[in-house]
Amino acid sequence: MSVVPEFLAANQKYASTFNKGSLPLPPGRKVAVVACMDARLDPARALGLEEGDAHVIRNAGGLVKDALRSLVISEQLLGTKEIVILHHTDCGMLTFKQEDAVAAVKKNIGQDASHIDFQPFPDLEQSVRDDVAFLKSNKLIPDDIKIWGGIYEVETGKIREVK
Amino acid sequence: MSVVPEFLAANQKYASTFNKGSLPLPPGRKVAVVACMDARLDPARALGLEEGDAHVIRNAGGLVKDALRSLVISEQLLGTKEIVILHHTDCGMLTFKQEDAVAAVKKNIGQDASHIDFQPFPDLEQSVRDDVAFLKSNKLIPDDIKIWGGIYEVETGKIREVK
Repeated sequence: MSVVPEFLAANQKYASTFNKGSLPLPPGRKVAVVACMDARLDPARALGLEEGDAHVIRNAGGLVKDALRSLVISEQLLGTKEIVILHHTDCGMLTFKQEDAVAAVKKNIGQDASHIDFQPFPDLEQSVRDDVAFLKSNKLIPDDIKIWGGIYEVETGKIREVK
Repeated sequence: MSVVPEFLAANQKYASTFNKGSLPLPPGRKVAVVACMDARLDPARALGLEEGDAHVIRNAGGLVKDALRSLVISEQLLGTKEIVILHHTDCGMLTFKQEDAVAAVKKNIGQDASHIDFQPFPDLEQSVRDDVAFLKSNKLIPDDIKIWGGIYEVETGKIREVK
């Protein structure tokens, strides 16, 4: 059983009323959102994004180190001027350490994953501060790019700033 | 001028009717979607995803090489069993080469970005095939994980399979 037939049926419905076929490639609101891949977070709904508004970059944790290639393309080739980082409560990245991930892969599928930096973090607010600091100190992210970091609460749907 | 005040206002509205505060951490539909960061593609709307359904991993191009850390976490720590790859028509990754990206960064902000592999691709359908093949041959993605690759048409909202 695959979810693909359900996805394609849902897509047929989406496409049947689709009226956004002439949007330009560069994001209209000149922003890139970096958010966790978590299933409970829908950045578009949670931030009021429509098709065409913003680049949305997502990975496990919403970590900017994994997003650097995409951010440079977003800014230097497609004109975005702002980065919004969204981590979230109850994140899976808070629940394991590097050695736990390596051990789980070994146990589950017998493979060595020690070459992958899984980048777990023990403190949610600090993880946002660290990501803001990483971008602010990175020479590929120029000083005129605005950077904002916040936390999405999966319990309430609310977003709050991390200072 | 920042988009953040608008994002927070939209979020207040979203949170005011939020009723999904008790969803479990593992994705309900046991699938991870890997899609491009493109502003015109909203994977949740285009595939019929609700909060809690699926991991959504996004980067420039929707390239699986950048997503490997996230996919291993998704499968081995959070129980997903399927990967859906979505590239799309009119993708920015079709419009430049590695040397163009390095030159743009040098021209725009005076920095050397030659250490970043920007991973542009010249052929859209082949880029999907390459990503499916990359995952199928990667030892960290076991054989029982279903993998499907398709293209989202930004002109029509439709998704089609790449074989």
